[in-house]
Amino acid sequence: MIIVIQCKDQLGLVATISSLIAGAGLNIISMREHVEKSEARFFTRIEAEGNNDAAILQQQLQSALPADADISINPIPDKKIIVLVTKEHHCLGDLLIRNHFKTLGAAILCVIGNYNNLEDVCKRFEVPFHFITHENKSKVDFETGIHSVVQLYRTDYLVLARFMRILSPEFLKKYERRIINIHHSFLPAFAGANPYRQAHERGVKLIGATSHFVTNDLDEGPIIVQQIIPVTHAHTPGEMMRAGKEIERAVMARALQLVFEDRVLVYKNKTIVFE
Amino acid sequence: MIIVIQCKDQLGLVATISSLIAGAGLNIISMREHVEKSEARFFTRIEAEGNNDAAILQQQLQSALPADADISINPIPDKKIIVLVTKEHHCLGDLLIRNHFKTLGAAILCVIGNYNNLEDVCKRFEVPFHFITHENKSKVDFETGIHSVVQLYRTDYLVLARFMRILSPEFLKKYERRIINIHHSFLPAFAGANPYRQAHERGVKLIGATSHFVTNDLDEGPIIVQQIIPVTHAHTPGEMMRAGKEIERAVMARALQLVFEDRVLVYKNKTIVFE
Amino acid sequence: MIIVIQCKDQLGLVATISSLIAGAGLNIISMREHVEKSEARFFTRIEAEGNNDAAILQQQLQSALPADADISINPIPDKKIIVLVTKEHHCLGDLLIRNHFKTLGAAILCVIGNYNNLEDVCKRFEVPFHFITHENKSKVDFETGIHSVVQLYRTDYLVLARFMRILSPEFLKKYERRIINIHHSFLPAFAGANPYRQAHERGVKLIGATSHFVTNDLDEGPIIVQQIIPVTHAHTPGEMMRAGKEIERAVMARALQLVFEDRVLVYKNKTIVFE
Amino acid sequence: MIIVIQCKDQLGLVATISSLIAGAGLNIISMREHVEKSEARFFTRIEAEGNNDAAILQQQLQSALPADADISINPIPDKKIIVLVTKEHHCLGDLLIRNHFKTLGAAILCVIGNYNNLEDVCKRFEVPFHFITHENKSKVDFETGIHSVVQLYRTDYLVLARFMRILSPEFLKKYERRIINIHHSFLPAFAGANPYRQAHERGVKLIGATSHFVTNDLDEGPIIVQQIIPVTHAHTPGEMMRAGKEIERAVMARALQLVFEDRVLVYKNKTIVFE
Repeated sequence: MIIVIQCKDQLGLVATISSLIAGAGLNIISMREHVEKSEARFFTRIEAEGNNDAAILQQQLQSALPADADISINPIPDKKIIVLVTKEHHCLGDLLIRNHFKTLGAAILCVIGNYNNLEDVCKRFEVPFHFITHENKSKVDFETGIHSVVQLYRTDYLVLARFMRILSPEFLKKYERRIINIHHSFLPAFAGANPYRQAHERGVKLIGATSHFVTNDLDEGPIIVQQIIPVTHAHTPGEMMRAGKEIERAVMARALQLVFEDRVLVYKNKTIVFE
Repeated sequence: MIIVIQCKDQLGLVATISSLIAGAGLNIISMREHVEKSEARFFTRIEAEGNNDAAILQQQLQSALPADADISINPIPDKKIIVLVTKEHHCLGDLLIRNHFKTLGAAILCVIGNYNNLEDVCKRFEVPFHFITHENKSKVDFETGIHSVVQLYRTDYLVLARFMRILSPEFLKKYERRIINIHHSFLPAFAGANPYRQAHERGVKLIGATSHFVTNDLDEGPIIVQQIIPVTHAHTPGEMMRAGKEIERAVMARALQLVFEDRVLVYKNKTIVFE
Repeated sequence: MIIVIQCKDQLGLVATISSLIAGAGLNIISMREHVEKSEARFFTRIEAEGNNDAAILQQQLQSALPADADISINPIPDKKIIVLVTKEHHCLGDLLIRNHFKTLGAAILCVIGNYNNLEDVCKRFEVPFHFITHENKSKVDFETGIHSVVQLYRTDYLVLARFMRILSPEFLKKYERRIINIHHSFLPAFAGANPYRQAHERGVKLIGATSHFVTNDLDEGPIIVQQIIPVTHAHTPGEMMRAGKEIERAVMARALQLVFEDRVLVYKNKTIVFE
Repeated sequence: MIIVIQCKDQLGLVATISSLIAGAGLNIISMREHVEKSEARFFTRIEAEGNNDAAILQQQLQSALPADADISINPIPDKKIIVLVTKEHHCLGDLLIRNHFKTLGAAILCVIGNYNNLEDVCKRFEVPFHFITHENKSKVDFETGIHSVVQLYRTDYLVLARFMRILSPEFLKKYERRIINIHHSFLPAFAGANPYRQAHERGVKLIGATSHFVTNDLDEGPIIVQQIIPVTHAHTPGEMMRAGKEIERAVMARALQLVFEDRVLVYKNKTIVFE
């Protein structure tokens, strides 16, 4: 059983929570706790063992904790995702393989692409592919098209696996804290378009990738995972991009694993990640 | 207030501990907990804020927890160390600078060397240096000499900062879990002498360093920190050694910081490190 | 044009080689050179631009350089590989995706497995799968079976992508310097079976993976790439294995890229890698 | 003998250079070459062995290569530096220790500080300390003061070891490509003041440090080395700073080693680093 809680901090929270858990006959295997002092905010993630009625424990915790407490027990047992892509295959390919062998930690319901070149690889794994072009269309119409497809499913998250269209705040608001993006730079450096060209021009010695929840625009929002890879003067922008794709895939895989295991809590514009 | 506990695992330990802490009017700022299931062993490290009589809390915890509980409150407030060296200066130099600017997290009481070439740098920082040669001496006499110097002080730890003499099990037993070594390889690879030459001969692409508590012999014992640095075919054994010294210093600095902040718990031949 | 040369070292080699290249109207874009002084051995890799008859240049270099010179021009333009697997899919899946999108740098001719559970995923990408069981068979018969399949194709390399059977020196001799293995540890630490269990028992703080050419036995031979990933006390052997699989894939991908781009030269038991 | 050359690219440069070197009876031990194609610019660094008159070889190379060729033989045999500091000791302490044990690769002529708190540690190593306050002074006067001290010595480089005053373009122009700075962030992210606070506010998962030559302003100029260190939600800005100091020191040490070994060539706003 996994229990994830955040609420305003006050004295005795751990005692209250752990007493209820012990009272329910559960043994705590792993407990992570963090107080963000500047925000007076309490976060915890608990793994406990034993048979128990989650609904009763939820109720007991809700009564005992501050009114603002956000409590999830076994948050979402079998997570489902929809993947949005444009043309690049390196992230999608990795997701499809993991999904196929059931090591992704979530099930891919479908893939939505604004080009159709990735339809073939989806078909090979019997994953539905929806082609929604952005061409000759207003952004509203394009996003309505995506939204309509998403509505066909019950998805927990949208994963932007190198999806290159900028989504409107209106669209993003519909899926708050449920959209995960992979940005191809070490944010906040090189936000925006063509980060590898920017990195080459600046002559940096490391390039990175960032996965984050999307809030108002594509390069903002709480960061989940960042990793880097060293580069040298000998890397052309194209070789930087190729090296970057390896790190993009690694960052995506790690971020999704953390999210799917309920290790990522969000508060304001930051994450608390209990690895 | 820092509270570090290990004991056999049983249901309700977190509740018991956190209730006593809350009852004492302390607020838990950070709590880390681990159960080693294969050993049915419970470990926790708690940072709490508030005024409290540590002795009373210690007593309360001792009565409430299993009889084998090992409980430390504010384990050792101002840690003291003695540093043992041979001829190499790169680790000692770093320790002396940190000690001088009070960023080491502990105070160096003295340095013991089996050569005297490092006496000068110790004097520059007014740190006592004791020269105890191993030459023309039995191992028993050499170690008795060291032990006599150590007895002049009240030290919490002995730090082997590239100390190149093998200490006997009899000596090591006197300072159980209190000796920290820096081994110049990624243990268990290349235990023993000349790890950089071994690494060069094997043509490895990474070299490492390991800091660990010393138990029976110099290259065994619970590992605290390990780090690596990439090398290439172009590194001679000498250049590997030079690169290795950078990583030895980094590993030593990190391990000591973790130990001095009471983040390292030991059980059998392993560490639990609450970073 | 890529030119790769190794020979015994002598004065003026770079001048001789670069003069012939310039004489052929080629412009050197990138040149890497290494002399292994302890072996008095010279290695170079040159990328040059311009139209030229490779055969003539090869002949000119062969006459001008020491008799033992090993000279390759555009070593193998379109590399072909055969992949050997047992049951684990994480390396194979990655190879199949890269092969499908033509980013592997080589073409997979077929996959040989001693179990048949990976046949399905190969079929999805129209890659031939040959099932050769080791059960109820002598090692000689098993290896003869593999060899017969390999003979059906013209392969440049055999890639052991988590192939768990130990191959005999007789078999290995047939494919000298043409077999690439991924070992699931930071060699030479934890050679042999169950490295993750060994790593867990020793309480290491890093786990690694190693790709290497196979010589006499599966865990020996010149190392191409090694990488590590940090682990903590909280990793069970199973979680170490899962983390290790990520690093195994990364190491395999990097090693194959280097080999396929003719950046890896072998001499005795070591590699020279011109990244 | 170390030979470092850059010039505009043309066919046959390597042949010309290596023939002259061979003609001089020198054996090339290591050669690194790079052509920046977008700039049609050629860079090389050669280590050669043998007795030779450097002046003659220099003359021969100068006649044989394009008129714009920048040729250095044994560029600066015994490099000298002046270190500028403000209040922080972690970089200076490391430099002083390395200087004292002659592992820095250059000699510290003196230290200039705009506070005097670091005078004591310099005295311990008999390194002259010049206190030049910026208080109650125009920037011109402050910089004139520094310049006057620098003029007392013959220095090759100025090292800004956490020097916190912004130097004017006029001052910087006097020491073009001779000022090395350590910036406490992964540039171009978090340029300017208080990068650790910026990093904490953005919730990044990695923090970095950058060493670079200083051109127009303190955070611009060709990057020499960048490294990062992971951080988590649990790092306060103060703890990020502490972790950052470790990486600042590592970056500084590595950058200085590369520069002092003549492995760093500069062209426009980038470096070519032959590691």
